[in-house]
Amino acid sequence: MIKVIQDANVTIARTIFDNREEEYKSVQSILKDVKENGDAALYRYTQTFDRVDLQQLTVTTEEIEKAYANVSEDFLEAIKKAILNIRQFHEKQRRQSWMDTSETGTILGQLIRPLARVGIYVPGGRAAYPSSVLMNAIPAQVAGVQEIVMTTPPDQFGNINAGVLVAADLLGIKQIVKVGGAQAVGALAYGTETVKKVDKITGPGNIFVALAKKEVFGLVDIDMVAGPSEIVVLADEKANPIYVAADLLSQAEHDPMSAAILITDSTTLAEKVQLELDNQLKVLPKREIAEQSIEENGAIYIVPNLEAGIHMINDYAPEHLELIVEDPFSYVGKIKNAGAIFLGENSTEAIGDYFAGPNHVLPTGGTAKFSSPLNVDDFIKKTSLISYSNEDLKQNAEAIQTLAQFEQLQGHANAIKVRNTGNK
Amino acid sequence: MIKVIQDANVTIARTIFDNREEEYKSVQSILKDVKENGDAALYRYTQTFDRVDLQQLTVTTEEIEKAYANVSEDFLEAIKKAILNIRQFHEKQRRQSWMDTSETGTILGQLIRPLARVGIYVPGGRAAYPSSVLMNAIPAQVAGVQEIVMTTPPDQFGNINAGVLVAADLLGIKQIVKVGGAQAVGALAYGTETVKKVDKITGPGNIFVALAKKEVFGLVDIDMVAGPSEIVVLADEKANPIYVAADLLSQAEHDPMSAAILITDSTTLAEKVQLELDNQLKVLPKREIAEQSIEENGAIYIVPNLEAGIHMINDYAPEHLELIVEDPFSYVGKIKNAGAIFLGENSTEAIGDYFAGPNHVLPTGGTAKFSSPLNVDDFIKKTSLISYSNEDLKQNAEAIQTLAQFEQLQGHANAIKVRNTGNK
Repeated sequence: MIKVIQDANVTIARTIFDNREEEYKSVQSILKDVKENGDAALYRYTQTFDRVDLQQLTVTTEEIEKAYANVSEDFLEAIKKAILNIRQFHEKQRRQSWMDTSETGTILGQLIRPLARVGIYVPGGRAAYPSSVLMNAIPAQVAGVQEIVMTTPPDQFGNINAGVLVAADLLGIKQIVKVGGAQAVGALAYGTETVKKVDKITGPGNIFVALAKKEVFGLVDIDMVAGPSEIVVLADEKANPIYVAADLLSQAEHDPMSAAILITDSTTLAEKVQLELDNQLKVLPKREIAEQSIEENGAIYIVPNLEAGIHMINDYAPEHLELIVEDPFSYVGKIKNAGAIFLGENSTEAIGDYFAGPNHVLPTGGTAKFSSPLNVDDFIKKTSLISYSNEDLKQNAEAIQTLAQFEQLQGHANAIKVRNTGNK
Repeated sequence: MIKVIQDANVTIARTIFDNREEEYKSVQSILKDVKENGDAALYRYTQTFDRVDLQQLTVTTEEIEKAYANVSEDFLEAIKKAILNIRQFHEKQRRQSWMDTSETGTILGQLIRPLARVGIYVPGGRAAYPSSVLMNAIPAQVAGVQEIVMTTPPDQFGNINAGVLVAADLLGIKQIVKVGGAQAVGALAYGTETVKKVDKITGPGNIFVALAKKEVFGLVDIDMVAGPSEIVVLADEKANPIYVAADLLSQAEHDPMSAAILITDSTTLAEKVQLELDNQLKVLPKREIAEQSIEENGAIYIVPNLEAGIHMINDYAPEHLELIVEDPFSYVGKIKNAGAIFLGENSTEAIGDYFAGPNHVLPTGGTAKFSSPLNVDDFIKKTSLISYSNEDLKQNAEAIQTLAQFEQLQGHANAIKVRNTGNK
């Protein structure tokens, strides 16, 4: 049964990852191996961890064709619609290089350019997430990234989920590598005979993938090290308890570590949601996972008023926030920290996970205080442009030299001085 | 003497940091201590490392007033001009939240909001860099960050450099903490009695500061772990060797690890620059540092043509790039990877370090392939907005359920289903 907490000055508890000393050592040794032995290490680890002896690391065109035959027309139609929506949203994030010219001849500017090559990690095994392919690849493509390589672990027959292959093919991803875990991250970060080194690695994975990404960060860029998923639903007495319970369970079914939190000013709603959770849990296929999540990490907080709830939300900085309250837009300005805000009773999180357009890769673990949903900016880099005119150089030579000399960097001052004293 | 390399297929060598096992252990223990003991640990480490027994951790208004008395009118005037220029440039980076409305009633959007609180690390000791204060604090302020705390190590008398204090005061920074090293990073990341926990830490520092920032990354955001500074000058036969040599030395005087590289298609220019380096080195106050940098990490590459040089540049991804060539703008499109590009013979790096407006915090160590100059985006976070209409929910319910069910997430499908079957 979900915990009900009624306390005016409460902070939402959050499960913190343990220290993962052992996994970390294993990750370090796998990375070193891949760096030194390239493809050979990839074949070896795939044999060990995925229990399959691959003949070839990359997916063939025959496998892609077979994948199309193995998904339904409904699935194909749905994913095509999702691709359109996600692309449309992310296109609004695209930015332009700019220049600022002055009458004195100086030009300053900022170039926006795509990363050259990006690696996308897609989890495999029992679960398969075509939506992950879309959410990671589309912003990169909208940014203008020319080369995208996808890696995902094969099943014991050496196969990749048909939906994942179809998603990748619909997006025009040319190289799909059948490798998972820390070894996949190593291949992307260092490069092997088959996998060219990338500039950035994005996509979710298990603890080994997460630790490997953190380890190679700096050599390549990474998206973020994602923690367990979270939802907070802020609801008033008019909220439909069936909807609220369904939304909490859609989070809880992901992982026992997921956190599904309801904050409400209505004791009646809290009680109804409790009952409804039990009802809906009974018939949920992933009942065991969801039940453990609800029991260990779920909670219903009854607050004296919604303002108190918003204070808790800003402190917690949830990945997903649903506002199932009257006039939800009136709260948006008060919400300082959240990955995504879903407004009103129609806007269940699942719409955002799959379909509406915004990205489902969102900051977890309170990092919404300082980080953002995956977006087009994550796949570009900026370069400053400085073209200084002789007029401006002469005008400001003294000031620049004064600042350089204050910092005891005479070499910097000299670079101005030689230009300002006619040393032609 | 600087190395001259003439080889058609060459890659620019780059010094890589060693493994810093010992410093890392020390950093971990300092961080743990600060986390557990707060201010007491800060006083203790400042006594050990900075050899001063502080009475108070924060700078007083009396100290600020004294600082103004200790800087020249010229300095004050120059730094005020620099502030204006830097602010003006960064204001062009500011972005707006946006919304996208549809006739079917759905609203999607992206909120842009500033981080709440940022910590800026400013190096101290022998060197003092007021320009660092400007380059880190101004983009944060332009982003709308309300609280900025600055930390910097005191000298043995407990004092902070007057220029650094004046720079901070001119920008309206209210809290200046006299603590440096890993202990300062710990204070910003965990919070102590005096220093409130921040959302992000930016600013350069020594190896202890860099390792500490990497260690707390995730709990708070960090800017980047900066490596040694670098310049590449691409010059043709018409370039003035006096300018080129001065610019190479302005980089070399920073640190023996700094890399100053000239790439040219002119053997004559290469020879002249060699001679000029020797001439200018003789009278450079930081001669020893610059000489070591030039000898160990500097180089002149003679290339068959400038195109070959650009290929090397894109592979190396320099922090600073000067194009001292005819028609420099014609090369901009070909340069894929560089932190900042300085165009033409007037645009010496020192102008960008202090004055022109663009940020001097730039990606080092080849990270310009995937990261950017410090900018306003580094101090904001985005939040997605999803307000889905009932019409769109009904229209797309089947598609969303299909996608959720394909991923075996029936709870997600249920959240759509309960809304679409009139469960009011």
